Amino acid sequence: MKIPSKYIENAVDQISSLPGIGKRTALRLVLQLMTRSKEEIEDFSNAFTLMKANVKKCNTCGNISDIELCTICSNTTRDNSLICVVEDVRDILAIEATESYKGVYHVLGGIISPMDGIGPNDLNIPSLIQRAQQEPTKEIIFALSATMEGDTTNFFLYRKLQGLDISISTLSRGVSVGAELQYADEITLSRSLINRQPFEV
Amino acid sequence: MKIPSKYIENAVDQISSLPGIGKRTALRLVLQLMTRSKEEIEDFSNAFTLMKANVKKCNTCGNISDIELCTICSNTTRDNSLICVVEDVRDILAIEATESYKGVYHVLGGIISPMDGIGPNDLNIPSLIQRAQQEPTKEIIFALSATMEGDTTNFFLYRKLQGLDISISTLSRGVSVGAELQYADEITLSRSLINRQPFEV
Repeated sequence: MKIPSKYIENAVDQISSLPGIGKRTALRLVLQLMTRSKEEIEDFSNAFTLMKANVKKCNTCGNISDIELCTICSNTTRDNSLICVVEDVRDILAIEATESYKGVYHVLGGIISPMDGIGPNDLNIPSLIQRAQQEPTKEIIFALSATMEGDTTNFFLYRKLQGLDISISTLSRGVSVGAELQYADEITLSRSLINRQPFEV
Repeated sequence: MKIPSKYIENAVDQISSLPGIGKRTALRLVLQLMTRSKEEIEDFSNAFTLMKANVKKCNTCGNISDIELCTICSNTTRDNSLICVVEDVRDILAIEATESYKGVYHVLGGIISPMDGIGPNDLNIPSLIQRAQQEPTKEIIFALSATMEGDTTNFFLYRKLQGLDISISTLSRGVSVGAELQYADEITLSRSLINRQPFEV
């Protein structure tokens, strides 16, 4: 497919650099953008530069935030002694949507995966240990994907937290094994939060 | 799904304004963008403003182009007396990919569709009639989608061009009826160009 404009081609390349979007879909999207006004295109473009310039990671939990401390960590009605460890920001959104969790979070920013070359040092694990040691923490919930990598990460975290006087739990296996957390339906996810179980090695 | 950053939310809204992309997919794409560097995000954003500022429509055929006259219209090895009428720029790319057409094009910019409120006056039909009258044109090929709207548009164009000494043909119905042109495979599309047939009312 030879596109007769290097500007269109560049825009197609940029859109198709996004995960899961091929050249043909990208061209369809770009030609739809071409039908918009100059102002609309500026709004579209600015959304990404503004986002990059302004969005921070919460100092405490690693959630996306417009301020230093995210809306969850700065919410005084939430239980700071209960920390839910997740892989990704999208997992926070999924859990928040269940409305059955009132604790706080800790975003690892990934999962231990030797196959992808991701080790413990690539994740926000030291800051979790520090939180557990320095703040009055009663319980830590491991809410990682029910995959082999998730289990490996759970085990690694368990070993690191073992000496501290903190209950450690995992989501109940209502979430089907092999599936990724963020795609679970809200009822299953809600039940697995309520039925969380002590971590067993 | 409540996103804890208005900048991320804005970016998600912009991405999900594209046809066929939902909020959840948009969030996945936006969070992937967030992992890129400031420079990469600028390249991403600039692609769209540059495109809007620089891409023109070819004066003659309506194809996308970086210059006044597109690469097809300005190519002296192409047969200017043979005009292929298409609905959309993507149809040109599909036909060019077959490498079995050496004439030029005319992009209508849509198709007559009373259901969508698109009438003949919303399309580049006057410029087609003008080309047919003023330039030495031997044949016009109707290469519109094999749908009711395509047939309606064919008939309308036929009536407008009837008095002129120009052969009028349509793609052979190798393209399956009810399907859209741009999704046809190259062999079918190539065959239907070669076997094009006189327009019958």
